[in-house]
Amino acid sequence: MILGLDCGGTKTHAVLVDWNGEVLGEGFGGPSNPNASPMETVRASIRKAVSEALGNFRGSVKVACVSAAGTLGGMKDILEGILGELLPGAEIIVKRDYEIAHVACFLFNPGVVLIAGTGSIAYGINEEGKTVRVGGWGHLVGDEGSGFWVGKEGIRAALRAYDGRGRGTRLREYMLEYFKANTPDGIIGRIYSSENPKTLLGGFAPYVVKAAREKDEVAMGIIKDAVEEIVLTYRAAVRRLGFSSVRDKLAITGGFYFGSRDLLRPLLTRRLEEEFGEKVELREPLMPEAKAAALVALKYMEGKEHEGSR
Amino acid sequence: MILGLDCGGTKTHAVLVDWNGEVLGEGFGGPSNPNASPMETVRASIRKAVSEALGNFRGSVKVACVSAAGTLGGMKDILEGILGELLPGAEIIVKRDYEIAHVACFLFNPGVVLIAGTGSIAYGINEEGKTVRVGGWGHLVGDEGSGFWVGKEGIRAALRAYDGRGRGTRLREYMLEYFKANTPDGIIGRIYSSENPKTLLGGFAPYVVKAAREKDEVAMGIIKDAVEEIVLTYRAAVRRLGFSSVRDKLAITGGFYFGSRDLLRPLLTRRLEEEFGEKVELREPLMPEAKAAALVALKYMEGKEHEGSR
Repeated sequence: MILGLDCGGTKTHAVLVDWNGEVLGEGFGGPSNPNASPMETVRASIRKAVSEALGNFRGSVKVACVSAAGTLGGMKDILEGILGELLPGAEIIVKRDYEIAHVACFLFNPGVVLIAGTGSIAYGINEEGKTVRVGGWGHLVGDEGSGFWVGKEGIRAALRAYDGRGRGTRLREYMLEYFKANTPDGIIGRIYSSENPKTLLGGFAPYVVKAAREKDEVAMGIIKDAVEEIVLTYRAAVRRLGFSSVRDKLAITGGFYFGSRDLLRPLLTRRLEEEFGEKVELREPLMPEAKAAALVALKYMEGKEHEGSR
Repeated sequence: MILGLDCGGTKTHAVLVDWNGEVLGEGFGGPSNPNASPMETVRASIRKAVSEALGNFRGSVKVACVSAAGTLGGMKDILEGILGELLPGAEIIVKRDYEIAHVACFLFNPGVVLIAGTGSIAYGINEEGKTVRVGGWGHLVGDEGSGFWVGKEGIRAALRAYDGRGRGTRLREYMLEYFKANTPDGIIGRIYSSENPKTLLGGFAPYVVKAAREKDEVAMGIIKDAVEEIVLTYRAAVRRLGFSSVRDKLAITGGFYFGSRDLLRPLLTRRLEEEFGEKVELREPLMPEAKAAALVALKYMEGKEHEGSR
């Protein structure tokens, strides 16, 4: 049997599939990103998700594929260690979340997937197997168009309205509400003493989306800027991959996207059609990432068997 | 006698003045910003600067005024404690760096001073004594037009050129040079594992200035954007203070400004003249901040004597 695992910053998802890719079991756990949670939490989350997915299954798992966000670095060893204990004898494959998101959207076919979560990144593969990565440089010098970026721009706009540099916006009131503060000075203390300012600022993105839905022009301006950044990212990836048409080649996923889909999707589709001069049907994932991870493991095993039979 | 002290992130400057404001002694030390350096360093830097300034002077210091950057919070107590030990019996006044910079430029007269250092902030006082602060919201949601901001925008532009989202720029090569790295991935690791990414990114500002001097269009665009941000900040302060003319009312200081003065000053003066529709003579500090701090202490003592004589 084969196990697929999605290790995220807020939850863990595991699926057990058979050699035909049919799902036999599924399990969930808490956060399991080793860059964001303590080892004990990561271990407990993975253990819970995996044991739920295995259920009463008593056979052996031959291979497991894990989807992990952020820089792999030491994370790879940590995840391999934990899974090695839980699944003795299994081969463990650790992949980046954007590689798995690509499979979830394109099933090993060419295309570009853009992830708009707390951070942002695009990843594409063309017919020749060439891969490109665009963006994903983190919250200090990248992540344009992400939830972090939209939240940060919202706070920035609110502060600019407050001190007379920017236009009036209801983001100013929403900012005080979000931080449960009475003055911007209190907010600044909160931001700079935060252990995770990226998550804190990203958490304001839903307020920007809300204000934009309510026709606040400053908030709508931020959303439109995010759309431009996303279009620019697709454009760079499409150019570098040399696609002559983007038909069936563009996909999008991520928590920020799904949280603002009603607003974002029509704006984005219109701008992409202007950009590429053709009809754009923006794909979304065909399956959960844990299932896509399992399919990656399955494909890996097929490749091995194929090699073995030569 | 009176002591003025400027506690900065890279150096400490102390001056001893007499009751006429004449400088009797001067001393220097290393970094002494309690938000950025360990207590032992702060203490040693202040001790060295103060003892040099006192020299052979054997009388007692009646009052000392300290200029300190950043949020005062617990910093005030720390600085008061250290100076209380060094100057037994002296009154200690702790002021924010922008209040002291204002005195250094305007000598207690109305006006707006903008500090463009690693961070940015404007502080103004009008004829009625009303004060305003514009910007200064820190590197995550503010500091537009500062050295941090210019450095960060430079790195961002280099990364955007690298992955095909932005125009070609020599900032890409300068970025690799600055970080002594061969690929952007190595740089990202350096930025996010840095203990002080604000200082690290701000340190790239001189490269952006250099590239702009060399007519790199992307770099020049960043400098022009910085100028626009600075103009916007002055405009907000001037409006809120109700100045009908900005004649003799605008001043600028800060490490980033002085490091790019040849480029920045003419651009800024031209844009300010367009903005306010009159001739602008942008002031710079008339004296070091430590001397201005001493004058604040002197004025405070004069006020006290005046009170006592009523």
